[in-house]
Amino acid sequence: MDYRTGQRIVAETARRTESRYGNRPTMKDVAARAGVGLKTVSRVVNGEPGVTPDTERRVQEAIDALGFRRNDSARVLRKGRTASIGLVLEDLADPFYGPLSRAVEEVARAHGALLINGSSAEDPDREQELVLALCARRVDGLVIIPAGDDHRYLEPEIKAGVATVFVDRPAGQIDADVVLSDSFGGARDGVAHLIAHGHRRIGFIGDMPRIHTSAERLRGYRAAMEDAGIPVEDAWMSLGVTDPQRVRKAAEDMLAGPSPVTAIFAGNNRVTVTAVRVIAEGSRPVALVGFDDIELADLLKPGVTVVAQDAAQLGRTAAERLFRQLDGSLVLPERIELPTRLITRGSGEQPPSD
Amino acid sequence: MDYRTGQRIVAETARRTESRYGNRPTMKDVAARAGVGLKTVSRVVNGEPGVTPDTERRVQEAIDALGFRRNDSARVLRKGRTASIGLVLEDLADPFYGPLSRAVEEVARAHGALLINGSSAEDPDREQELVLALCARRVDGLVIIPAGDDHRYLEPEIKAGVATVFVDRPAGQIDADVVLSDSFGGARDGVAHLIAHGHRRIGFIGDMPRIHTSAERLRGYRAAMEDAGIPVEDAWMSLGVTDPQRVRKAAEDMLAGPSPVTAIFAGNNRVTVTAVRVIAEGSRPVALVGFDDIELADLLKPGVTVVAQDAAQLGRTAAERLFRQLDGSLVLPERIELPTRLITRGSGEQPPSD
Repeated sequence: MDYRTGQRIVAETARRTESRYGNRPTMKDVAARAGVGLKTVSRVVNGEPGVTPDTERRVQEAIDALGFRRNDSARVLRKGRTASIGLVLEDLADPFYGPLSRAVEEVARAHGALLINGSSAEDPDREQELVLALCARRVDGLVIIPAGDDHRYLEPEIKAGVATVFVDRPAGQIDADVVLSDSFGGARDGVAHLIAHGHRRIGFIGDMPRIHTSAERLRGYRAAMEDAGIPVEDAWMSLGVTDPQRVRKAAEDMLAGPSPVTAIFAGNNRVTVTAVRVIAEGSRPVALVGFDDIELADLLKPGVTVVAQDAAQLGRTAAERLFRQLDGSLVLPERIELPTRLITRGSGEQPPSD
Repeated sequence: MDYRTGQRIVAETARRTESRYGNRPTMKDVAARAGVGLKTVSRVVNGEPGVTPDTERRVQEAIDALGFRRNDSARVLRKGRTASIGLVLEDLADPFYGPLSRAVEEVARAHGALLINGSSAEDPDREQELVLALCARRVDGLVIIPAGDDHRYLEPEIKAGVATVFVDRPAGQIDADVVLSDSFGGARDGVAHLIAHGHRRIGFIGDMPRIHTSAERLRGYRAAMEDAGIPVEDAWMSLGVTDPQRVRKAAEDMLAGPSPVTAIFAGNNRVTVTAVRVIAEGSRPVALVGFDDIELADLLKPGVTVVAQDAAQLGRTAAERLFRQLDGSLVLPERIELPTRLITRGSGEQPPSD
């Protein structure tokens, strides 16, 4: 274990701020050590021809000895490609984005690109700031789950050749590729499922109305109710932030009063987990269908019936389309809509409690 | 909606590959349009003094009209700072990393830095490839959840000034900052809790033995058993990948045979969710304590008793330490260990079934 003492010196050197950016070895250092010209080092580093095996070996030894690494920032400027794509999503901590992010990363890696990742925290200004910061770093393309509804700020970037695919929600004010789940159809099916099990007083708790998926799912709820000839009362619909406090209040309000709802449709996974809690705390059974599947939903009593979307497939489809844009094999923006799947587990099949 | 036709032209232009990197406006274009010199544009873009308000306005108008954006890749080369940090984790889709990633990102943003994110998929080669790719992009620092156990490949980078903090698992073969949860103490407490409730035949299902947290938690299990004078049988310990198939087989084997275990300690959240399933399918009750909290654990019957670690606090502590390295206010690497917390919910308080 005597490497520790040796390493501590390295560590201290690293932490001497004046040396922070000072002592990174350059091609000049490599050339000097190998006793060759700068152009020769450059040839070896960039894998160009015209170097004898013996010279190449000497240069390689110098590179290894000095710990030289090619500065890709310089190559970006020369070649105009960073071999990286950006992913802008809403919240790194939302489990919905986990499989989506991993799928985008897998496609990026298959194309030799690095994934650069950041979140907008559902703030349009922060989305724009992050997107432009990524463009300034010359990412080849962007996969964006938009927080804002006006993306004209992206026009100069798209014009300059940044490939762009929106996922989960469409772009605003510009015509761009978008990969979505069928939020409208999925919500309509989920609410129709509750109606088919005898419910008429059905609540809808969703995300903020300006969010496309939230608006579409509300539209699906309204369509299902209208198809069944059920007039919707305002007290049955609650849209807003999906933090537990807000959702809890909304659910408790719907479940109180003279004519409470007998079923709740939860607009996304964040809403569902809180709705499950509120219902579990109550005395009478309340039917529940949630949009998005959630882990362990099958082990709860009753199991949680959900309208599942394939988050990984959303990410995969969007990323593959992004690289097809970069290949130049795509011409016009398209809207790709993926189907949802109703998974019945018990909570959505309970009859009305009164 | 007549913006669509207009946008389609923009979109088509963007997709003409020959124009992909051709038509990004340059400072020269801005200078020409504003009728000023290149140096003046540069002053305005970089916020340097010596430009009259009127000239600055004309340059700004040209910048807006052309959609010019400063190329930060160029600035990186001039200033040596990208104002970005890298985060290398094991799996973007593991819910444990969600709050950790978000916490790192929040700290990065507070320091005006962008988070660049990637995953190693628990593959040491992929970890090194990703880390060096991030270094080649001149990130200021790295927060690494290591997959490998030899990080000497990072020495040239650290020497060159890349700040480095390991989190969740320590670095191998180099002396670097690390922020950990107390895996040993947490596992020992969790197993002691099962012993206190009358269990003696207790199984341990963990991740691959080469993973530090897995080895530490097994050590905690052994320590608790030894403290209680209980000889551990090999059949009670199973380490390996945490995919559902492997964990299911391990749990079923421990619960079968002449003297099955009466309790299971699950080495992490991935193991816990599968162990919960296997136990729920069985006829007799089996006590369970899991390392890491899991969503909805409190709503299962029985609720899942866990040894919780604070993933967000791990990320926050590591990122703050990273920026203190960059400030030059840290001298020597430290090992910071965060405590775990036993949360009793029922599954860990069940007596032995026989």
